[in-house]
Amino acid sequence: MRPSQRQPNELRPVRITRRFTKHAEGSVLIECGDTKVVCTASIDEKVPGFLKGQGRGWLTAEYGMLPRSTGTRIDREAARGRQSGRTLEIQRLIGRALRAVVDLPRLGERTIQIDCDVIQADGGTRTASITGAFVALCDAVKCLMTKQMIDTWPIKNHVAAVSVGVYEGVPILDLDYLEDSACDTDMNVVMTGDLKLVEVQGTAEGQPFTRAELNALLDLAQVGIEQLVAIQREVLQKD
Amino acid sequence: MRPSQRQPNELRPVRITRRFTKHAEGSVLIECGDTKVVCTASIDEKVPGFLKGQGRGWLTAEYGMLPRSTGTRIDREAARGRQSGRTLEIQRLIGRALRAVVDLPRLGERTIQIDCDVIQADGGTRTASITGAFVALCDAVKCLMTKQMIDTWPIKNHVAAVSVGVYEGVPILDLDYLEDSACDTDMNVVMTGDLKLVEVQGTAEGQPFTRAELNALLDLAQVGIEQLVAIQREVLQKD
Amino acid sequence: MRPSQRQPNELRPVRITRRFTKHAEGSVLIECGDTKVVCTASIDEKVPGFLKGQGRGWLTAEYGMLPRSTGTRIDREAARGRQSGRTLEIQRLIGRALRAVVDLPRLGERTIQIDCDVIQADGGTRTASITGAFVALCDAVKCLMTKQMIDTWPIKNHVAAVSVGVYEGVPILDLDYLEDSACDTDMNVVMTGDLKLVEVQGTAEGQPFTRAELNALLDLAQVGIEQLVAIQREVLQKD
Amino acid sequence: MRPSQRQPNELRPVRITRRFTKHAEGSVLIECGDTKVVCTASIDEKVPGFLKGQGRGWLTAEYGMLPRSTGTRIDREAARGRQSGRTLEIQRLIGRALRAVVDLPRLGERTIQIDCDVIQADGGTRTASITGAFVALCDAVKCLMTKQMIDTWPIKNHVAAVSVGVYEGVPILDLDYLEDSACDTDMNVVMTGDLKLVEVQGTAEGQPFTRAELNALLDLAQVGIEQLVAIQREVLQKD
Amino acid sequence: MRPSQRQPNELRPVRITRRFTKHAEGSVLIECGDTKVVCTASIDEKVPGFLKGQGRGWLTAEYGMLPRSTGTRIDREAARGRQSGRTLEIQRLIGRALRAVVDLPRLGERTIQIDCDVIQADGGTRTASITGAFVALCDAVKCLMTKQMIDTWPIKNHVAAVSVGVYEGVPILDLDYLEDSACDTDMNVVMTGDLKLVEVQGTAEGQPFTRAELNALLDLAQVGIEQLVAIQREVLQKD
Amino acid sequence: MRPSQRQPNELRPVRITRRFTKHAEGSVLIECGDTKVVCTASIDEKVPGFLKGQGRGWLTAEYGMLPRSTGTRIDREAARGRQSGRTLEIQRLIGRALRAVVDLPRLGERTIQIDCDVIQADGGTRTASITGAFVALCDAVKCLMTKQMIDTWPIKNHVAAVSVGVYEGVPILDLDYLEDSACDTDMNVVMTGDLKLVEVQGTAEGQPFTRAELNALLDLAQVGIEQLVAIQREVLQKD
Repeated sequence: MRPSQRQPNELRPVRITRRFTKHAEGSVLIECGDTKVVCTASIDEKVPGFLKGQGRGWLTAEYGMLPRSTGTRIDREAARGRQSGRTLEIQRLIGRALRAVVDLPRLGERTIQIDCDVIQADGGTRTASITGAFVALCDAVKCLMTKQMIDTWPIKNHVAAVSVGVYEGVPILDLDYLEDSACDTDMNVVMTGDLKLVEVQGTAEGQPFTRAELNALLDLAQVGIEQLVAIQREVLQKD
Repeated sequence: MRPSQRQPNELRPVRITRRFTKHAEGSVLIECGDTKVVCTASIDEKVPGFLKGQGRGWLTAEYGMLPRSTGTRIDREAARGRQSGRTLEIQRLIGRALRAVVDLPRLGERTIQIDCDVIQADGGTRTASITGAFVALCDAVKCLMTKQMIDTWPIKNHVAAVSVGVYEGVPILDLDYLEDSACDTDMNVVMTGDLKLVEVQGTAEGQPFTRAELNALLDLAQVGIEQLVAIQREVLQKD
Repeated sequence: MRPSQRQPNELRPVRITRRFTKHAEGSVLIECGDTKVVCTASIDEKVPGFLKGQGRGWLTAEYGMLPRSTGTRIDREAARGRQSGRTLEIQRLIGRALRAVVDLPRLGERTIQIDCDVIQADGGTRTASITGAFVALCDAVKCLMTKQMIDTWPIKNHVAAVSVGVYEGVPILDLDYLEDSACDTDMNVVMTGDLKLVEVQGTAEGQPFTRAELNALLDLAQVGIEQLVAIQREVLQKD
Repeated sequence: MRPSQRQPNELRPVRITRRFTKHAEGSVLIECGDTKVVCTASIDEKVPGFLKGQGRGWLTAEYGMLPRSTGTRIDREAARGRQSGRTLEIQRLIGRALRAVVDLPRLGERTIQIDCDVIQADGGTRTASITGAFVALCDAVKCLMTKQMIDTWPIKNHVAAVSVGVYEGVPILDLDYLEDSACDTDMNVVMTGDLKLVEVQGTAEGQPFTRAELNALLDLAQVGIEQLVAIQREVLQKD
Repeated sequence: MRPSQRQPNELRPVRITRRFTKHAEGSVLIECGDTKVVCTASIDEKVPGFLKGQGRGWLTAEYGMLPRSTGTRIDREAARGRQSGRTLEIQRLIGRALRAVVDLPRLGERTIQIDCDVIQADGGTRTASITGAFVALCDAVKCLMTKQMIDTWPIKNHVAAVSVGVYEGVPILDLDYLEDSACDTDMNVVMTGDLKLVEVQGTAEGQPFTRAELNALLDLAQVGIEQLVAIQREVLQKD
Repeated sequence: MRPSQRQPNELRPVRITRRFTKHAEGSVLIECGDTKVVCTASIDEKVPGFLKGQGRGWLTAEYGMLPRSTGTRIDREAARGRQSGRTLEIQRLIGRALRAVVDLPRLGERTIQIDCDVIQADGGTRTASITGAFVALCDAVKCLMTKQMIDTWPIKNHVAAVSVGVYEGVPILDLDYLEDSACDTDMNVVMTGDLKLVEVQGTAEGQPFTRAELNALLDLAQVGIEQLVAIQREVLQKD
């Protein structure tokens, strides 16, 4: 029995709210149970130096947590003067995951800047960030299309992410904070809309794991991502 | 006529939502028109070094803006590695304003940490932060009372804040971003529940101003703060 | 009775020495009692990025304290690797105060850089900085005129500043360190030569203050600034 | 055909030199083809704050590259004043991988500090670091045993790592820099001596990958790690 | 003929003013021609961690330049967020030079903190700092004696410093900025009151130099330091 | 008798290995006894801003120590976020020493970047760095000649360095760590191939030293540098 009372293959309730704030070209609040992340996509008519003059675009991501998004207040990274290794690792993951489904040359020489800010954390903030940021990205790209700044849809596929883990020997889907703290193996899986793998990051927190366990976890992740992509599609259809 | 179509002495609609996030002892979303700030109050059972062993408490505040809370994305301070002068100035102001109404010895040797994070900005974020943080502070203190960690209510008075300014020669209350950008004199006023002054910060952005203008602005601020304190009271009565 | 034995409306002796150091275009030592600040104005033939190509100038200020300008040695900010919030707040104030009296387009596309460095501190360092920096600014601008780099005098008015406060219930002018540490309300006032307000920053350190107290403090400030402007005029007449 | 002319399942020549430098308790040079990493293990008779008084040990890792270990000189991180996201990510990975095989309570209240410094880079520096650091760790622990500072061998298992990837559609083992730059999917695999998984980090650099490809890559990784563990064993048997 | 019109072996006029500022235990203004440095010595009743519990004292030094102490304004190190290599090098030199004449165990477990801040620079700021700081140090130590915090005079000898260089083939003493910029070899010499060497730092800015030139420079330095020590003695005799 | 059993005028065995790593234009491992430093010279087709457009080149140096190059692990400067004063001082010294023998205009508008990284430290790392970096510099310049990027050999002379000191009253050459820790006077001497002085840095660690001692030390240094230059010549002759 999971602490959350959910079935092993059961996602938390997911809610995606588009146009959550008014300034960003794409702005989404994603809620996965008690995990709440604001994902925005901003368009910047420049590319980083290493891409200048190549006529192709770029996408980059930043991630942060409000100091009191967690049970115990965490130090504000702006006040400490540096982002933690965890933060840098997560924002690199979000960037790679979204770039995997964007045809960057079609963006033209501009950058889409993704910001994922955790308002409330209860496990799975990096995977929720990816799933939500994809929707914000779509809205920002629609904005580019509407303004006729680009003429071909540059997003090749959906992308969504979920965590899976082994809790007391049982593979479970979409870990909340309590489950995450207690589980042996913890894996974050990013997949496209047709369920191909974009990123697999599995870590043995306690006992090393077998290939069989890895496969069971990937099966579960696939179940979850299928549902998350369906929710993305549904939400994006409106308006 | 103000860009916002409001009367000179008219506040924007104010909404204060308590228990906005689940982890903080006090957690408030304050909305003043399109300005939205999450204010949390966290209890830390320590005091800064300079207060150790004195049996009295402390209150401190930090402030931040989500990168895309504004019309043009601003750099993430955590990524830049330092907080701007503006940020430091605002968080010092919030801290002073709230400390002015707290009887610190009654808190015992602990710190209340206020965090004000701007989700969406449309002018007046620092004053909204103070007005909202006061409510979060009350909730955190209630929590200390409920847990019997303190036995006397340490908050001596309400505190709230509003901006005023001279727009095209006319003193106006509660400036939104457009009005703020265009006005000559800009003043932030912090007052207690009995309308005494805690802080006055007036700046001539364009033309220097007269004592008469200063007085007209303070009259307006008083009108606004009276209403803000009433809203605080109403919101705090519930539950 | 004030600790300093002065009358409530009595300034400390003020001495302004022009050409205090030889390299800067404007270089002033201002002494207000035991507070001593070196104020220099340097001309830089560039403007910050956000002003490029607009044909107008800029003025910016920096502030620092020698580590042993104070009773207890303070850490050197260069060694700590960051300027404190107080420092940033003060240098922003100095910059705003001086910009308020400069016709920036007349400066041409160049920056005047003000540096205020406290050699010895005894309260009122930020207001002494503003009063002294104005004189340094005039000298730097004279230098521009002499070299025929500009042809119209761009300084619209005098600007000077003073602190006022409520000490044991009595409003007093120009607080020294002891008075400042003990007073309830502390206010810094910046005015032009015709006694219009440029900046008012009042803070209730202890008890909140009334509108009547605010007015009494502003009356006192006006008395002080009138004298400071007279001293500026006298000093600037020479040579 | 691989750029390196190797068979798809062929490791580069691996050489592990123990006692490479004289000061560290464990000091290893690992060479995997042209990739050369100095791995040291140092014993520190302290633990980080969060572990104090618990009677258990800790292991942590840092990673760096000499500025000219690469084809184009990279900035020295010490001079830039911050470690890159990539560096932080790699050193977190090395630390987790080694902790997975150490029985930390048996270490007693002390820290083993791993340092991996890349002298020459040709792909696979992070996996070489893990494989080499394991040997340095064993030497440092032997040193603790010899000095009778601990009495039970605390290392539960071997740990080694290798990279695998899909190059022109073919899964290949142990990518050098050229292969790594050109491959579609890149995966780092960390396994124990009995070939259980400690960490799997797979990224689709170009095309997303299938479960079948993932499995083929893991099969290859297993082949490589089996050989790396054999080399570790052989090297550790001496003396 | 030197640019300064001085004889090759002629010092600039030196003036040392004790009690230049009121807060520091020792406070000296040293003027060597147009070079003006404020040197203070502060007593801190602590020692750095590496000396705790050993019953001996420490002396350390910091150095800074006001931004407009020079012909062209230099960036404020506090604003840039780091001290330059030159600054660190100079403050390490000052610290070593003064420690060479202090019997640290006699100081007791306390630190003397030297601060040298350049108000106006015209070459030789580091050597002026040492010569002036020695006087400030004596005053701070007198203060310890007067308060009976130590009972034996801990200063073993005078220490003073001067620069020498080869200008157009001629060895000259006490270079001002113009001479320093144009000279081939530049050497800073620190000597005790009995003319033993504490520090020699000679650098060939242009042509390498011979042993004969080195000896001629040291002869000159000796001439200068003899006079500087005489001035220190005279100044310290008063009061 | 020296701790190292060497004669007072005896260098440690010196070994210089060219082409130590494969990527750098010049790459040298220098071993002086147990001190081992990797010196690389990299060519960068840019010059720093202050030299742009002058048609002349530049040479700069950086220095680092692997954390466990020493008996006790030292903090990684990249992790601490700043280079120590000692590091900055050493890398400035290395840069000056090599620039003294390079005809910068002949380099053309490009920079040679020297990196000296200490793999194992046993005293004399800064002098070994200079001696080794000279060889790496020659190899990088040969590379420029071979590629016909420059047409005249720009290196005017050899440069090498050695430490000398007074150990128990006896001047000795080339101090190892133990000798360095115990000696009274410590001096680093940099000379050209024709034994002219480029840099002399002598420090009295304990007792101040006399001119006679200085001369004895310089005599010894000359003996050592003569041999070091011979080794450089021999090594550079090959291939």
